Amino acid sequence: MGIGNLHIDIEKVSYKTMADEVEMKLLEYLKKQSFKPGDALPKEMELTEALGVSRNVLREALSRLRMLGMIETKKRRGMVLSSPDILGSLERVMDPLIIDDATLQDIFELRLTLEMGLADILYIRKTKKDIEELEKIALSQKTTPTKQNFRIKHEVEFHGKIYQMTGNRTMQRFQTMLLPIFGHLVNEEKVPIVGKVSHIDLVNLLKNGTREQFREGMRKHLEHHFKKLKK
Amino acid sequence: MGIGNLHIDIEKVSYKTMADEVEMKLLEYLKKQSFKPGDALPKEMELTEALGVSRNVLREALSRLRMLGMIETKKRRGMVLSSPDILGSLERVMDPLIIDDATLQDIFELRLTLEMGLADILYIRKTKKDIEELEKIALSQKTTPTKQNFRIKHEVEFHGKIYQMTGNRTMQRFQTMLLPIFGHLVNEEKVPIVGKVSHIDLVNLLKNGTREQFREGMRKHLEHHFKKLKK
Repeated sequence: MGIGNLHIDIEKVSYKTMADEVEMKLLEYLKKQSFKPGDALPKEMELTEALGVSRNVLREALSRLRMLGMIETKKRRGMVLSSPDILGSLERVMDPLIIDDATLQDIFELRLTLEMGLADILYIRKTKKDIEELEKIALSQKTTPTKQNFRIKHEVEFHGKIYQMTGNRTMQRFQTMLLPIFGHLVNEEKVPIVGKVSHIDLVNLLKNGTREQFREGMRKHLEHHFKKLKK
Repeated sequence: MGIGNLHIDIEKVSYKTMADEVEMKLLEYLKKQSFKPGDALPKEMELTEALGVSRNVLREALSRLRMLGMIETKKRRGMVLSSPDILGSLERVMDPLIIDDATLQDIFELRLTLEMGLADILYIRKTKKDIEELEKIALSQKTTPTKQNFRIKHEVEFHGKIYQMTGNRTMQRFQTMLLPIFGHLVNEEKVPIVGKVSHIDLVNLLKNGTREQFREGMRKHLEHHFKKLKK
């Protein structure tokens, strides 16, 4: 590698801004002091002095923590620490057009992993009422759609309901976020492929089958996705 | 509900800052204009004019996007859109002390779901070398640790290696983030409970068993966690 290449490598380094550093220091500070949700943060003046930074830089860092849902401004009480919305920032960046290909593939596999793993919690929490609702969804989808976007709509409806049935709101929201990525990758297929086990088959397994029979059904339902995974 | 209560309800509403709004508008703008990683953003002057905001507010919003890894500042080229680090902000907020209890429980279950679902990808990607490495880890853990923190260290080593074996870096990183939460909840148990299937049993299943036998083994390994899940 010549000096020319080295020069290019050096140019690639991005700037680390003051806000990056102050944000990190603030996060460390909050952890070290064992701040808990509801606790009031020190005043801006005290923070700028402790961190040795300007008010503008501090505000930039605080703004980031506000974005993460880690701090809130309350009337009269000022800034307090709050329980962060852990999926909020993930939602902001979940855009198939800007995420790199390797990560898109990872997310695709992550969703398959969740589908295969949720039988355990589903069998603990499923209710008769939920299964009836799922059946209604599956029956309304009886005709196999030829258009890819309809097929994805069906997937969202059906699998979304299954996630809801787990009673796990974080998982449900996470899956909703993963679907555009999934749809983006599946949309690239020319011919829609339907698994050997249909949505209505899955409902019947959920009604009468064991946890493991349901899981085997789900595997067959997703088989064409698994077949495409690279070693 | 009297006026008194209503008054309190109104106080609970947090301020929505200008930066919140400008950040949202910027995200929308980038999507609408189909910006792709590598594309240069318009100059600050143009953005402040288009959005009708002050330079300070714009900078605050841009700082947030920089935090999400969505924009980078490059020498000579200025700000360019980049592929976001999708787990970066999740990492910042994954702190068991500030996350609310319902979400902690959700994350606990999410990790169990991943463990149960990863057999499929693991069986596509596992190599002899990886299994040997996993076996080394399991053998070095032969004595059951009585102290909880040692037990968690073993869990991290062993299960972390399994995630690495899936070849899915996002999933691996995600699991690393979930572990402090898992550890936090498990730490509250007084007596460490060991599943009927040990780490070394899992290695042997991975060597000689089918995907489904491995999964059943994993289920038994995690059985005491599943038993505690509420209907």
